[in-house]
Amino acid sequence: MKVSKYRDTKPTQELPGVVKREVINANDGAPNYCMRVFDVEPGSSTPSHSHAWEHEVYVLSGQGEVVGEQGEKPLAKDSVVFVPPNEHHCFVNNGKEILRFICVIPLI
Amino acid sequence: MKVSKYRDTKPTQELPGVVKREVINANDGAPNYCMRVFDVEPGSSTPSHSHAWEHEVYVLSGQGEVVGEQGEKPLAKDSVVFVPPNEHHCFVNNGKEILRFICVIPLI
Repeated sequence: MKVSKYRDTKPTQELPGVVKREVINANDGAPNYCMRVFDVEPGSSTPSHSHAWEHEVYVLSGQGEVVGEQGEKPLAKDSVVFVPPNEHHCFVNNGKEILRFICVIPLI
Repeated sequence: MKVSKYRDTKPTQELPGVVKREVINANDGAPNYCMRVFDVEPGSSTPSHSHAWEHEVYVLSGQGEVVGEQGEKPLAKDSVVFVPPNEHHCFVNNGKEILRFICVIPLI
């Protein structure tokens, strides 16, 4: 068993304005999926892209929107997002605080 | 894409003092794993058990401890827990507020 605080995990700068922490990954013995925490600065967003794997997302704090193939939907604390495989998407921080969310992906 | 608030998901009473919401599951098209949110009342706990699948947990609010095979460790907001397959574990609310956490399991 591994118990930590998410801030114990070393952050990596994914791109300007976006920081990622892999709080549980294969190095911990995770066999199937990986839990990451993203911090997106106000005015920043994750890249608009698609891929063959899904996302399961839970918003911890902040304000923003997720842009999918049917348009955008607002996000706030306690929003839940399922992005199915191959759907184009991005997460946008249009608020004034950090947009922080958990994003679980399969280990591939 | 599915976007919701976790409270939009109908809760189920897992046992006295423990409520579960499956915020993303196979009915949403999730192919590999399921995201649940648990609310554990003060003085209550999840059953002490083990199983062949892992847990990836993120604590949203409250105070408690996770009891594993090497003893107990404290939990609070932003704690992260990886429970490997087959390790005995339970989550205990020893605080005064609801202990709320995300728990991701494989779809089996």
